[in-house]
Amino acid sequence: MVTRLSTFFLRTLREDPADAEVTSHRLLVRAGYIRRQAPGVFAWLPLGLRVKSRIEAVIREEMAEAGAFEVHFPALLPREPYERTNRWTEYGEALFRLQDRKGADYLLAPTHEEAFTLLVKDLYSSYKDLPLTIFQIQDKYRDEARPRAGLLRGREFTMKDAYSFDVDDEGLERSYLTQRDAYERIFTRLGLEYAIVQADAGAMGGSRSEEFLHPTPIGEDTFVRNDAGYAANVEAFATAVAAPVDATGAPAPVVHSTPDTPTIDALVAVANEVEARAGSAWTAADTLKNVVLAVTGVDGVRELVVIALPGDREVDLKRAEVAFPLAEVEPATEEDFAANPLLVKGYIGPWSARGAVLGETSSSGIRYLVDPRVAEGSAWITGANVTGEHVFGLVAGRDFSWDGRVDVAAVRPGDPAPDGSGPVELARGMELGHVFQLGRKYAEALGLKVLDHNGKLVTVTMGSYGIGVTRILATIAELNNDDRGLVWPEPLAPFDVHVVATGKDAAVFDAAAALSSELEAAGLEVLYDDRPKVSPGVKFGDAELVGIPWIIIVGRGVAEGTVELWNRRTGERTPVAIVDAVEELRHARESSADALG
Amino acid sequence: MVTRLSTFFLRTLREDPADAEVTSHRLLVRAGYIRRQAPGVFAWLPLGLRVKSRIEAVIREEMAEAGAFEVHFPALLPREPYERTNRWTEYGEALFRLQDRKGADYLLAPTHEEAFTLLVKDLYSSYKDLPLTIFQIQDKYRDEARPRAGLLRGREFTMKDAYSFDVDDEGLERSYLTQRDAYERIFTRLGLEYAIVQADAGAMGGSRSEEFLHPTPIGEDTFVRNDAGYAANVEAFATAVAAPVDATGAPAPVVHSTPDTPTIDALVAVANEVEARAGSAWTAADTLKNVVLAVTGVDGVRELVVIALPGDREVDLKRAEVAFPLAEVEPATEEDFAANPLLVKGYIGPWSARGAVLGETSSSGIRYLVDPRVAEGSAWITGANVTGEHVFGLVAGRDFSWDGRVDVAAVRPGDPAPDGSGPVELARGMELGHVFQLGRKYAEALGLKVLDHNGKLVTVTMGSYGIGVTRILATIAELNNDDRGLVWPEPLAPFDVHVVATGKDAAVFDAAAALSSELEAAGLEVLYDDRPKVSPGVKFGDAELVGIPWIIIVGRGVAEGTVELWNRRTGERTPVAIVDAVEELRHARESSADALG
Repeated sequence: MVTRLSTFFLRTLREDPADAEVTSHRLLVRAGYIRRQAPGVFAWLPLGLRVKSRIEAVIREEMAEAGAFEVHFPALLPREPYERTNRWTEYGEALFRLQDRKGADYLLAPTHEEAFTLLVKDLYSSYKDLPLTIFQIQDKYRDEARPRAGLLRGREFTMKDAYSFDVDDEGLERSYLTQRDAYERIFTRLGLEYAIVQADAGAMGGSRSEEFLHPTPIGEDTFVRNDAGYAANVEAFATAVAAPVDATGAPAPVVHSTPDTPTIDALVAVANEVEARAGSAWTAADTLKNVVLAVTGVDGVRELVVIALPGDREVDLKRAEVAFPLAEVEPATEEDFAANPLLVKGYIGPWSARGAVLGETSSSGIRYLVDPRVAEGSAWITGANVTGEHVFGLVAGRDFSWDGRVDVAAVRPGDPAPDGSGPVELARGMELGHVFQLGRKYAEALGLKVLDHNGKLVTVTMGSYGIGVTRILATIAELNNDDRGLVWPEPLAPFDVHVVATGKDAAVFDAAAALSSELEAAGLEVLYDDRPKVSPGVKFGDAELVGIPWIIIVGRGVAEGTVELWNRRTGERTPVAIVDAVEELRHARESSADALG
Repeated sequence: MVTRLSTFFLRTLREDPADAEVTSHRLLVRAGYIRRQAPGVFAWLPLGLRVKSRIEAVIREEMAEAGAFEVHFPALLPREPYERTNRWTEYGEALFRLQDRKGADYLLAPTHEEAFTLLVKDLYSSYKDLPLTIFQIQDKYRDEARPRAGLLRGREFTMKDAYSFDVDDEGLERSYLTQRDAYERIFTRLGLEYAIVQADAGAMGGSRSEEFLHPTPIGEDTFVRNDAGYAANVEAFATAVAAPVDATGAPAPVVHSTPDTPTIDALVAVANEVEARAGSAWTAADTLKNVVLAVTGVDGVRELVVIALPGDREVDLKRAEVAFPLAEVEPATEEDFAANPLLVKGYIGPWSARGAVLGETSSSGIRYLVDPRVAEGSAWITGANVTGEHVFGLVAGRDFSWDGRVDVAAVRPGDPAPDGSGPVELARGMELGHVFQLGRKYAEALGLKVLDHNGKLVTVTMGSYGIGVTRILATIAELNNDDRGLVWPEPLAPFDVHVVATGKDAAVFDAAAALSSELEAAGLEVLYDDRPKVSPGVKFGDAELVGIPWIIIVGRGVAEGTVELWNRRTGERTPVAIVDAVEELRHARESSADALG
């Protein structure tokens, strides 16, 4: 049935929404695809729902191809299973919690590991039942602290989440690779360039973990890669511990007066005045910076730690959150410094952090953690724990020790990849999907065991595989637009062709209606702009904004038997005979580079 | 792609679930269609999801045919619009409420009138944009006090809710009839017998309101109907006020001692001993029963009222809830009687309810309301407000008056239809859908106005049209089963055909696999039971429980080139040549009475 714009539920907007920060948000609202309901919560209008359904259809096909079966869970789930896996607490404020009329605790599920685990536990009992991969496409909820960028970081979003269940690690690896392959096919069919990057797996208790990132400057995630094929998100990047250097004969440390040097830049300048370095001048890399972080665990306990790292490095808080699993990490506040007089801001060094005496366990209770680049035997300029004083030639392992190593410095272009494949470069990406070997964490917490070949109960091992459906839609919109509006790839467009009737001539409208029916009969979905009394300019503007890839203009040419075939992406308009229009469009679509399949 | 049972996610259960009260619940769980997550909250397993999708497809097709456009709203919505329509409060404990991390109030929407109204307000501004009907198929939440009967009364359920928007009442009537027609087509296609009954529209502020009920003894709703075409649910049934009777010359009332007569039965027996009635014996219909109800408004205020009705009538609490809109109604408790000594339990009469003095406003503050059957001038035996005493010959309007009329007595077979079409009979039904003229209630509360033909702002008038998708699925399961399991109508079955390979012979499994592929190639969806080492008895039992309408048994007959075609509904098994099996099945399906279309 041809959809006629005169009755279709669509209103395009002239103005950008006030809160739109990114192109996809701006255009999807203006072109009538989505509409905001609350911060980070959107309604889907007919155009948006059509695109979303097409994306979901691609995912469903590839999940079926991968042997995964579809189920559907409610968003509302009871607290108890999430209590057993500790996620009720660990999720912190990001979890929407509520109570029913009897006071029982519920949540709106952010993901469904617990529910899937219990379902399989409920129904399956033998290794013969496995492997199994099941998935759903479902609306999820996370109470993001700062919902933004439209669909890219919302508080409600549609996700495909799949979970695999295997009796052993080899099985998990196979299930994992099957899903990983399906993801590659899905993103290829959706026309989305992607990088598969190693991701941090630590906090979730699993082993192998990879993210599918779409490289884009507006991406929220930073990742590293090199030409040799190494790729990881910065959270997963590991820095090797520097090899020890021989400190034999290194001079004893000397304390110098370094007034007004609370910053590394100021310190380096003064250091070169105070004591010349053999060979070349001191640089920031010769100094040891001591950064104080406050780490708040899920138990609410706030701990201060000092991170010692070369002065030319910065702490990356995202990497720090991985180093301190499940905790919130932030820079220490003025209050923290005021409460800990041992921490002399701008002049902190190893001694004070570990108490006054070298080598002794900290009397302050503040852990002193060092970057992997701080080699045993290396000498540093660092704070003397007295305002206006620094110590020079302080040798790691000889003059100070530490409570542990921590790898939280920001990764820089040129840093060596941990696999020895050479220096990395940095890029930004948008997370599209995540494949993840959960291992036995959930199965153990919830008691999912099956009988193995020998009749022994073994704990099942699981994988978790997520794709952000609505985020993908927004990413595709980010990639496919120009200054006049959206330009959908053909397989994902809300309609296949947009027929525009212009002018007031009844014969034109009759011809446009007949052509629309003919196109539908040929298996194409048609949006027909049959609005009377709307100028061609407005109609063309709407067509460009809405972004259906092919537009057929039916106008005065009808008298001579011609219409115009307009390629939205290239802007090219070609006159074609009206009797050939269906065939010409078919041909044009076939030769289009968009054709995904 | 043929779905193979050896890997498919399905486990049938031998035992009925402990909490299953109705057949649909019992069978849908046992056959692996749904699984309970919390009281009234279910997960959908692959079989269930397939049936649900087929029902949704029928609804989508008919909505498109009716010119309605699909949208999708989140379940999570902000409080403010529901505050403006007062539903935040009116919904009482049935509303799931929650707060986000900033303390802002949200709800899980029970229906979406507010959101749809605001969306249209947001985008439309002129009569030229109307009429408009938009719908969604979406998961809803209501915190039912007593979730039960599986999917029939859950706390989460899938609903198709549509809303129409018109500039005037004539438009609303047209939109309403269009949806009503679509509902008739939907239920016909789904094979569901239905009655369209008048429903109460009062509390929602609208005018015309009809329910689609499926007549069934297990229905939750009672409705009345007669052969002349009258049909209404009991909440909407109206009793005419009885015509006045001439009380001239009626004797003055007399108080009699009637010990031990707290019930109507006891009273009637004693009454016939105490004072003979002219002509025939006293019956319950000659007594005036005074029932005390407690009515709690949304403001939490609890008010006692006395309902006076003929002694052979009972109060119907559902009808009472309509008579006291938005309030909760329950029988008065022992505490209520204890707190109101005027109310002499078992012996209540008009005087006490209105204070001690006839005709004076109640000094007790308790309203006295009478049934429409209590005619002006009619004489009654009723309580004398003293234990063990009743008054005889108390004339309505002469000896007692009332604060109002209330029509809350239970409807009985033989009661006259309010439209004069004759006596009604009672039936039970399951609500499948509801079409409803909301009128301007929501548009007024939320300020949805458009410019009319004359450039004047007018408030839009709306309709609301709901279908319970998951409830329909359960109703169909209730209607289509036997003692061995489910028997799906063909268009709604999770698969079109269930191929069962029996025995251990590889040639049999090869033939069954080849036949399954051939059936899929012919456009049928196939579930192939390829499980090795499972006995034919177990396979047949599973097939009967799962209820796919056609089963093909591939067994030893393969050696002679034959298989068996098994009609699940009739139980008939027909040998057919394997080379003809696809054609035979096609023929059998075409001649099947199930074919909906």
